[in-house]
Amino acid sequence: MANQPVVAVLMGSKSDLPVVEGAFKVFDEFGIPYEAHAMSAHRTPVEAMEFAANAEKNGFKVVICAAGMAAHLGGVVAAHTTLPVIGIPIASEPFNGLDALFSIVQMPPGIPVAAVTAGKAGGKNAALYAVSILALGDAALAEKLKEFRRKQTAQVLKADAELQEELNRR
Amino acid sequence: MANQPVVAVLMGSKSDLPVVEGAFKVFDEFGIPYEAHAMSAHRTPVEAMEFAANAEKNGFKVVICAAGMAAHLGGVVAAHTTLPVIGIPIASEPFNGLDALFSIVQMPPGIPVAAVTAGKAGGKNAALYAVSILALGDAALAEKLKEFRRKQTAQVLKADAELQEELNRR
Amino acid sequence: MANQPVVAVLMGSKSDLPVVEGAFKVFDEFGIPYEAHAMSAHRTPVEAMEFAANAEKNGFKVVICAAGMAAHLGGVVAAHTTLPVIGIPIASEPFNGLDALFSIVQMPPGIPVAAVTAGKAGGKNAALYAVSILALGDAALAEKLKEFRRKQTAQVLKADAELQEELNRR
Amino acid sequence: MANQPVVAVLMGSKSDLPVVEGAFKVFDEFGIPYEAHAMSAHRTPVEAMEFAANAEKNGFKVVICAAGMAAHLGGVVAAHTTLPVIGIPIASEPFNGLDALFSIVQMPPGIPVAAVTAGKAGGKNAALYAVSILALGDAALAEKLKEFRRKQTAQVLKADAELQEELNRR
Amino acid sequence: MANQPVVAVLMGSKSDLPVVEGAFKVFDEFGIPYEAHAMSAHRTPVEAMEFAANAEKNGFKVVICAAGMAAHLGGVVAAHTTLPVIGIPIASEPFNGLDALFSIVQMPPGIPVAAVTAGKAGGKNAALYAVSILALGDAALAEKLKEFRRKQTAQVLKADAELQEELNRR
Amino acid sequence: MANQPVVAVLMGSKSDLPVVEGAFKVFDEFGIPYEAHAMSAHRTPVEAMEFAANAEKNGFKVVICAAGMAAHLGGVVAAHTTLPVIGIPIASEPFNGLDALFSIVQMPPGIPVAAVTAGKAGGKNAALYAVSILALGDAALAEKLKEFRRKQTAQVLKADAELQEELNRR
Amino acid sequence: MANQPVVAVLMGSKSDLPVVEGAFKVFDEFGIPYEAHAMSAHRTPVEAMEFAANAEKNGFKVVICAAGMAAHLGGVVAAHTTLPVIGIPIASEPFNGLDALFSIVQMPPGIPVAAVTAGKAGGKNAALYAVSILALGDAALAEKLKEFRRKQTAQVLKADAELQEELNRR
Amino acid sequence: MANQPVVAVLMGSKSDLPVVEGAFKVFDEFGIPYEAHAMSAHRTPVEAMEFAANAEKNGFKVVICAAGMAAHLGGVVAAHTTLPVIGIPIASEPFNGLDALFSIVQMPPGIPVAAVTAGKAGGKNAALYAVSILALGDAALAEKLKEFRRKQTAQVLKADAELQEELNRR
Repeated sequence: MANQPVVAVLMGSKSDLPVVEGAFKVFDEFGIPYEAHAMSAHRTPVEAMEFAANAEKNGFKVVICAAGMAAHLGGVVAAHTTLPVIGIPIASEPFNGLDALFSIVQMPPGIPVAAVTAGKAGGKNAALYAVSILALGDAALAEKLKEFRRKQTAQVLKADAELQEELNRR
Repeated sequence: MANQPVVAVLMGSKSDLPVVEGAFKVFDEFGIPYEAHAMSAHRTPVEAMEFAANAEKNGFKVVICAAGMAAHLGGVVAAHTTLPVIGIPIASEPFNGLDALFSIVQMPPGIPVAAVTAGKAGGKNAALYAVSILALGDAALAEKLKEFRRKQTAQVLKADAELQEELNRR
Repeated sequence: MANQPVVAVLMGSKSDLPVVEGAFKVFDEFGIPYEAHAMSAHRTPVEAMEFAANAEKNGFKVVICAAGMAAHLGGVVAAHTTLPVIGIPIASEPFNGLDALFSIVQMPPGIPVAAVTAGKAGGKNAALYAVSILALGDAALAEKLKEFRRKQTAQVLKADAELQEELNRR
Repeated sequence: MANQPVVAVLMGSKSDLPVVEGAFKVFDEFGIPYEAHAMSAHRTPVEAMEFAANAEKNGFKVVICAAGMAAHLGGVVAAHTTLPVIGIPIASEPFNGLDALFSIVQMPPGIPVAAVTAGKAGGKNAALYAVSILALGDAALAEKLKEFRRKQTAQVLKADAELQEELNRR
Repeated sequence: MANQPVVAVLMGSKSDLPVVEGAFKVFDEFGIPYEAHAMSAHRTPVEAMEFAANAEKNGFKVVICAAGMAAHLGGVVAAHTTLPVIGIPIASEPFNGLDALFSIVQMPPGIPVAAVTAGKAGGKNAALYAVSILALGDAALAEKLKEFRRKQTAQVLKADAELQEELNRR
Repeated sequence: MANQPVVAVLMGSKSDLPVVEGAFKVFDEFGIPYEAHAMSAHRTPVEAMEFAANAEKNGFKVVICAAGMAAHLGGVVAAHTTLPVIGIPIASEPFNGLDALFSIVQMPPGIPVAAVTAGKAGGKNAALYAVSILALGDAALAEKLKEFRRKQTAQVLKADAELQEELNRR
Repeated sequence: MANQPVVAVLMGSKSDLPVVEGAFKVFDEFGIPYEAHAMSAHRTPVEAMEFAANAEKNGFKVVICAAGMAAHLGGVVAAHTTLPVIGIPIASEPFNGLDALFSIVQMPPGIPVAAVTAGKAGGKNAALYAVSILALGDAALAEKLKEFRRKQTAQVLKADAELQEELNRR
Repeated sequence: MANQPVVAVLMGSKSDLPVVEGAFKVFDEFGIPYEAHAMSAHRTPVEAMEFAANAEKNGFKVVICAAGMAAHLGGVVAAHTTLPVIGIPIASEPFNGLDALFSIVQMPPGIPVAAVTAGKAGGKNAALYAVSILALGDAALAEKLKEFRRKQTAQVLKADAELQEELNRR
């Protein structure tokens, strides 16, 4: 099944979408089929538990959980699956994501969740991390990731070239 | 059933016992039957969910959850019961309980957990808060709580009297 | 007296109203009579003390205290009543509510105040916590709270359904 | 009345004594009569209120309040007196005094409390600040304070001289 | 000399004026003559030192220092005078005044600076604290301060009355 | 090559060994061949870069980087490889690992590093996360991980049973 | 070669330009030739390493590195050169530069990076610090720096004079 | 004058010596003559100011200032000299050096102080940074610094070799 989603992107609230879009964009670019859900560790706990418990059986390989505040979603999912879980700390008022980061990264011994960048870059980086995991079993994807990196390097070099022009014009 | 436990005291790890003992002592003093369990939101998620889901039916009126680090226990329990849940933030290395406090108190809209004092006083204060809730429906307990407060006041006054003696002796 | 207020909602300043409104809305929805006051631990200390000292006698069962900065209101009220006190940490410049959270939650052993979510969700969550306390002695209210939870779950599921449509349309 | 205490030193708990002793030592050195009490904003709220309300009438000119955790003592006292109130943030587990500092310094507009150094130096600095206030109306005390400063400067210079010897001996 | 300034209000930068205005307003209301200067611990260190060293001789009784970032102004002034120094932590990007609060309050043993509320209320509270100090030697001012407090209490009561009307109208 | 190391465990300093041992223990238990090195982003930058650049070619699938303070090791390695990099924030004086956590998790868009639990549990959780990644391509390992989880659950249940006995004996 | 750049100003992203411009302005004012580059520790690691390794040979004397988030650029550059490296912590959402400050200043023993002011003043202060270093070997520059300081002092004195006029006009 | 001290190492208190010793050791190793003083921004402000004002004239090229709490020493020195000033944030109870770091690094625009590693490594890193500055005008010193770096790299490689042996012996 070519389009069987291999990554599940869960968000605690639809308001997390602006950050999570960064992940969608990466998966679209890499051609990785994914599935996304608004799902709450606290408001839909049974659904979250069942999704996690069945994730592997349903063909998922990585689960990304974006949540803010007391961001329990990643931990709840990780408690019910042995798939790698990536947590995106969503920043929100008033503690600016330090609450979410601590709630995600400080998992007790035995059930890890891996946290990536808090803030706007979180969606993109979570997806790229998922790609790096998936690429271990997919040589073509590994090559795409290397190509992505090369382009990324080229963009910085181009930005620097533009900067040189700007500075020279002064 | 006179001794039907009305408070459940859950701790994420047996290492939380020194703080939780403060709660036991209060309940013993007030004659409130309680039940205590080591139970982990992440390592025994099914048991935690089931305990929470059945807590009301099993006669519990208040659930106290002590946990450190990414302290999800209170949130997971609150997701599966409408009983009041009190969270005790357990301090641990390296973030000294700020991780636990944030993970407990910053619950999203709709599913509150009430946090009490982080650190050593947490067990005692969680239990006293449970007593204040139970006392709403139990006049004798309400009177006991007032008597407890009067004794507590007397202890501070006594400590002050001792301080005066110490200062006079200098 | 059907409309005897059972919850008192105190706010340190009228500027806390936007957060506190979240509590009013919940109480209106659940049909719980409440009374609200602007009252300051520091600028109207005698009034705050007297309100607290008479709260139980006046028929209140729960007191909610919303305050920012050095948020002493909850502690001052708790010192003069044995009713359960719920504190809402109001975020304000420049310390974004960490000052209020610490001032509310870190009560010394013997006089607890229960803190709920700092920030916008604070009013709603404080009220829902009060409902969970009141529901212990009111089966109809307990059922309403369960119904509220079911609706809340349904809302998240609906949001997810909408998200699926949005993603499919892309 | 030569020995009428002019400074009241209140501490939330006798366990604050090690820090508060630093204040006693300064007052003894400067010959300033003081009175000290263990008094709690939460466990002896009536006594604290009455002490504050009568402080000016009883001849006090400055009130020092040492407290840890949700350190409300200074705020409660300031609410009931117009005398200058100095707060000493006592550090305690797990938040190391940041809770106490915020609870003391972030008083709302209209009722200030002045915070001095958190930690061990707090008692000494609170007392020296009280001396600086009292010295405004007492030329002899003002001179003593200047002399104290000169000796203090000399001690640092002596420490430096000793350091030079140590370094030369290497 | 009726208008001899008794309070000096120093600000590290003219950009601190919005907060400092709160102090001016209080002094104007209480009829306390004051002098204000933009003066920097780092950019005009000699002037700051000389101002401090001569402050007492020039008739000042209290010095207020408003500064942000590494807010050394209060400490530098306190090092050169024995007058009471009040520090206002000015909040600024990116550390929102925690840098200024720490730089002001954490003075080493021997040279205290008293910190008041960080943020917008800082100017008002610093001035009120200065008033409470000056009132120790000025019975009329002491009475004015009590009157100010009564009015302030009345304002909160009035705000509460308005709140009742608003709630009743709903 | 049965024993070809598939995980590289790099530590910024040999003093990180106590935390890193937790990872070794997990890999030994799961029979996963690993290689460990003391390697510094700053003191052996060329070696770190070359190790990272050749890691994939040398058969590694996951790189774990433990570092404290300005913990750049994970970022430097991630810059030179597309393999998934797991960072362990090592807590050290005086900032207790918040410096390391921020340095690891806040990677800019494009080059993620995944952070796991700061503190003692970091080694164990980093290794378990690596296992969850490796298990995606190794069904036997996936089953071992599930068995590990079951045992872990059983241990908590056993701890709870012991707790019941302790409480009953009282 | 009169215009041989002696300072390299590296920024992790072109979005850091607003802060870095403060440095350019200083160098222009002092007539110090500089070179600026957008260069990323993570996205152009080879270029960053090579730039650092060749910086001394290419005539640079000081390297300024501006970066936000997990700000590794300064550390990576310092690892490959023995020139003095100055780090500017760029503030960004959500952690407001505390992440960048820690990532820059907490370098392990042996490879220092010197951090200057986080936030808007960072560019200006980094450049002035570079000037103070370069002035050690350039008497004319040292004199210019002293003149800069005198003008800066004069500006504050002028601001104060303006303030006096404003206050007098009231 | 071969032994004319070129670096001044000032410490706010002799209790800072354990950290500062790390600087002495580096200077001894590199053969750089230095002078050290206990000198306080607050307790010996005149001496600090005079030392700073005369530092350049007295042959110093770099000033290192170690201080804890409200660590103003670096700022006060920088205000009176145009020499490069390096600040070492000394960690102390209760705020573990965050107070000192903020007080040192957040200097306002116009007067920079460069902060190095807070904590034990601070002395060593401050000294190495001073060496890197002095090496700009001293080719032999520059070569020594490169040799120091090579040895440092060798030490890490040796530590790694030892680690391999330890791991092999298991």
